Amino acid sequence: MVRTRNLIDGMVIPHKDFVELERSKDQYFRVFIPLEDNEYAFHSDEENVFQMKKGEVWFLDAAIVHADINFSNKSRIFLCLDYAFPGPFSPKDVFINDSVYNPNLDPTIIKREEVSSDFKESLVTSLSKVISKYNFRDIVFLLSKIHFYKNISVSDCYDWLVEITEKSGDSSVYNKAINLRRFLVEERKLGERFSFNFSESEQLV
Amino acid sequence: MVRTRNLIDGMVIPHKDFVELERSKDQYFRVFIPLEDNEYAFHSDEENVFQMKKGEVWFLDAAIVHADINFSNKSRIFLCLDYAFPGPFSPKDVFINDSVYNPNLDPTIIKREEVSSDFKESLVTSLSKVISKYNFRDIVFLLSKIHFYKNISVSDCYDWLVEITEKSGDSSVYNKAINLRRFLVEERKLGERFSFNFSESEQLV
Repeated sequence: MVRTRNLIDGMVIPHKDFVELERSKDQYFRVFIPLEDNEYAFHSDEENVFQMKKGEVWFLDAAIVHADINFSNKSRIFLCLDYAFPGPFSPKDVFINDSVYNPNLDPTIIKREEVSSDFKESLVTSLSKVISKYNFRDIVFLLSKIHFYKNISVSDCYDWLVEITEKSGDSSVYNKAINLRRFLVEERKLGERFSFNFSESEQLV
Repeated sequence: MVRTRNLIDGMVIPHKDFVELERSKDQYFRVFIPLEDNEYAFHSDEENVFQMKKGEVWFLDAAIVHADINFSNKSRIFLCLDYAFPGPFSPKDVFINDSVYNPNLDPTIIKREEVSSDFKESLVTSLSKVISKYNFRDIVFLLSKIHFYKNISVSDCYDWLVEITEKSGDSSVYNKAINLRRFLVEERKLGERFSFNFSESEQLV
């Protein structure tokens, strides 16, 4: 599958891909080729926050938690190639001329700010007093972005969300948080969709 | 000026109208006629959170801080009539048959939850550790919604935002907060626009 993706002033919140697919994950291989980069656009995975630059060819493990964001109104266009190999393969197989394959390039890793020891506890406590079905989505987006500039894990946002909602005592937002985490980083059915809105059965008011 | 307004799954954040106009504010008169109401849609002003119901005709003081929200995907359609009277007037002047004017109807006021004494302090402290140019908009939306379900003032969100950004030590977000508050509830120029994005001169990165 080949797509071009242009992300402008938006975020793809942390998630795993392929969790709805049956084939062994190590046969899927995702390649990104930046066509237009942008100093305000970032990618992240379980290790780092980084920028892919024009001229580079990236292999991303989409089966681990990852996210991306463009904080600006400038475009950021990538070519995204999804391979599904029938069996064992090497990254260099995607090149016509495999002599250009060079796994030793230094990627542009973003240095992030360290958080204080009470950072998480203070945030969880105060947001547990304010979270509701009314601002559930705002809080998810707020939490999802923190790892881009503070040194926390890309998937902390969902664990913290579950703690925040559990502490809030509101079972409808707690269930929504559990369901969101399952959907994005654990398992989902083929074609399954998640809605941030609360249906009537989820006790909207 | 006559408009129909349909707000779906969205919010008009707290603001004053007419602050860019020169005529004395008491000559502007805004009338709302709900054409389709919705149990998940709310209005607020400096006094209350309330719902306007089909069959009612509402006069709103748009020169004080007010907001509205529809938490659902169901539509909520209002007719909005803006009058600019040349001189003194009575609300009953908008009716052809002024015998239908009845100022003693009981509006549907929403009972909101009281907040604990440390609510604001705890929220300001924890958000001051997390706010940045990256999530400024999320935090504005989060703060803007709180008054719809907790008993705080509709305009507290901007004062708290200023405190949060001041405490954060990040002058670019502090200046943005000061500018947002001025724009929405203090003064703005005719045709002035506000952008949540940070321009390069506002030190995006």
